[in-house]
Amino acid sequence: MAIGIGLIGMGVVGGGVARILNERADYFKSVKGLDLDIRKVAVRDLSKPRAIDLPADRFTTDPNEVINDPSVQIVIEVMGGINPAHDLILSALKAGKDVVTANKALLAEQGDDLFEMAAKKQVGLGFEASICGGIPIVQILSQGLVGNSIKSLYGILNGTTNYILTRMTEAGANFDPMLKEAQDKGFAEADPTMDIDGTDASQKLALLCRLAFRVKLSPSDIMKEGISHITALDIDFARELGYTIKLLGIAKAVGDRIEARVHPAMVPRGELLADIRNEYNAVEIVGSAVDAQVFYGKGAGELPTASAVVADLIGLAERRQAGVPTTGSALAPLPNASLVPLDEVNTGCYCRFTVNDHPGVLAQIATLFSDEGISIETVIQHGRSETENGTVPLIMITHDATEAAMRTAISRINDLSFVTEKAQVIRILHP
Amino acid sequence: MAIGIGLIGMGVVGGGVARILNERADYFKSVKGLDLDIRKVAVRDLSKPRAIDLPADRFTTDPNEVINDPSVQIVIEVMGGINPAHDLILSALKAGKDVVTANKALLAEQGDDLFEMAAKKQVGLGFEASICGGIPIVQILSQGLVGNSIKSLYGILNGTTNYILTRMTEAGANFDPMLKEAQDKGFAEADPTMDIDGTDASQKLALLCRLAFRVKLSPSDIMKEGISHITALDIDFARELGYTIKLLGIAKAVGDRIEARVHPAMVPRGELLADIRNEYNAVEIVGSAVDAQVFYGKGAGELPTASAVVADLIGLAERRQAGVPTTGSALAPLPNASLVPLDEVNTGCYCRFTVNDHPGVLAQIATLFSDEGISIETVIQHGRSETENGTVPLIMITHDATEAAMRTAISRINDLSFVTEKAQVIRILHP
Repeated sequence: MAIGIGLIGMGVVGGGVARILNERADYFKSVKGLDLDIRKVAVRDLSKPRAIDLPADRFTTDPNEVINDPSVQIVIEVMGGINPAHDLILSALKAGKDVVTANKALLAEQGDDLFEMAAKKQVGLGFEASICGGIPIVQILSQGLVGNSIKSLYGILNGTTNYILTRMTEAGANFDPMLKEAQDKGFAEADPTMDIDGTDASQKLALLCRLAFRVKLSPSDIMKEGISHITALDIDFARELGYTIKLLGIAKAVGDRIEARVHPAMVPRGELLADIRNEYNAVEIVGSAVDAQVFYGKGAGELPTASAVVADLIGLAERRQAGVPTTGSALAPLPNASLVPLDEVNTGCYCRFTVNDHPGVLAQIATLFSDEGISIETVIQHGRSETENGTVPLIMITHDATEAAMRTAISRINDLSFVTEKAQVIRILHP
Repeated sequence: MAIGIGLIGMGVVGGGVARILNERADYFKSVKGLDLDIRKVAVRDLSKPRAIDLPADRFTTDPNEVINDPSVQIVIEVMGGINPAHDLILSALKAGKDVVTANKALLAEQGDDLFEMAAKKQVGLGFEASICGGIPIVQILSQGLVGNSIKSLYGILNGTTNYILTRMTEAGANFDPMLKEAQDKGFAEADPTMDIDGTDASQKLALLCRLAFRVKLSPSDIMKEGISHITALDIDFARELGYTIKLLGIAKAVGDRIEARVHPAMVPRGELLADIRNEYNAVEIVGSAVDAQVFYGKGAGELPTASAVVADLIGLAERRQAGVPTTGSALAPLPNASLVPLDEVNTGCYCRFTVNDHPGVLAQIATLFSDEGISIETVIQHGRSETENGTVPLIMITHDATEAAMRTAISRINDLSFVTEKAQVIRILHP
């Protein structure tokens, strides 16, 4: 018996899903024993040409028709946005239908009642496509690594910022022209704010924490710093010091608490994460049994995202065909995450000070660090008067220190009379 | 109701499985709703101390007792070897039990009737642990990437050889001392033949082809070349030319045929596979929808392997608890692979000739390549008389050519009077 599929939205991702279902229908039939039939598709404009041939009466402009169609058993939501997507998914789950979505913003920001409804109704809420595109990271965390307690994860979760940082590194360029290039090449949106400021990564990190640590947390509770302040000068010094700058989402289990943060980080060369280039994504997971594993691939795009939607869909269709409710690994109810306060987070830091160079500068800065118990690992001071206004960059790499100590030290250093600009501070990854 | 587990073998991997089941019992109970009970364990020596506490009557020296115990529903085979493991697994499947095994040699060399019996009885035959240890590559191929037809895969599938090649690269050393070091450090066995000559990788590649392309093939049908002939000189030239030498398992879909081979390859720097160091494994998969993805982790060891066994076990226990037969994705019956004959395989090659240097050498070698339609991309000829006996290495990188053409050219070049040693030929990876 065929499984009825409903699609809400048939833009880029929806079109990709329809294409894959069409192209691989024989495979799903012969190998998985599944006959999948797209019964209803909600679109905005009925007159637009579509990726696949379907009878005209299967299209509607009313998404509720998809949900209410009794022949639709699995609903794929690829319209995006918080509302009406939220209410549509809730209705579908309430009606006992499985839902597959690529909507990370919705699930991360307002997904609690959706996960709860899915658990209550014992139906599936698949969201593989909402994190790292085609990389099957949700399945890896919930099934492949089920024998591990997850110690930590480190992710290059946003393709736009990784593209910009890669191009800055390879072209020795500053942020603005590389953002422009990313926009021209389709790797950044016209309004790139959510990517650039780390919001997108923090939403994905919140969902990853739900999977890895089985806790609820809001993306707004995650410490977040974007990449627009990174300069070509920092990229240069990073290279000299043996690092590559990446925007990372980091989450760790620290006793019963979770440390979660999104910020640019100095990644030591030799770490695989330092080698992830352009728009690609990667997640490093450290598990109690497997130790470090890395998963790498395209984090966005029509077909990679559609691939993840289809993986969820096939898994749910197999269960539905076998008559098995989706019970195990329900992501609700979950306790709220107990987060390590930012002040207590420990990292080494790269600090770039801009100073009027004269004797005693280094000693005074070192003293302020020392006052906070922070030790210095490396100092770089190239020549003199490297800039037109007579200032020079002074680079200091610190050993691990708490954010609280570092903030105090940096604030006092910024107040020194010979310091002409606010310090640039980039945390260092110690995996 | 508890699911009864039987273990055949409780050495390194079996002990790891028991430890994980013990440590994560609460998790499996609360999150997956599974109560897993180790009901019977077959060991060689009853008096040996064990990783976990179990009543004495649960141990036996007779593996048949594990299979015949009516309270055992899932059998974990971690004894290794072809026989009696083969017959024990067959009996367990025949009796309607699920089986999980880490036994790649058995499945690759004599697994056909086991896969067939599992399909016939609609029970599971899990072998995640038999390829790349803790990396959930079987699940990724059979579920996570189900929306993709697989175009090609490239794997660093053997940790021993990757450790040796990494150390040769980093220490500038030859093969023999690094093999010795690998043995001292526990990364190579006392008899390392199966690792060194590519047999182990070819067994894993045969299983990966079964999953990726749904064809049967014997490891002995896979073109296979080991690493013992690689020298420090080749490693040096590889570095100069921008390559890292890795032992790769390569499989590609070429029309309706499969190209499958295991050999050392020059991997261009910048490819993630070039960065996989020491005993780690990695697999790059190119799918029709996701494009290139890479999966990286430890390919062996007690806990990584046990992690994979447990992942299979939990998946099968969930199905069993829900009363669902294991149908989809059965790996039998499968057609025999139609392999691309080796003569037709196309690659570029690194060729190192050892020659008595005099005018006309380069021209004569180039002519013999040209006679076979092979063009030269790069030539390196450093100085003169670099060795004591007055010979010099001459390096030529060829453009793509068939193995047949290359073999003819190399054989004719080896016959030239000024060529003093057989040519060293290493294929180049063009992903």
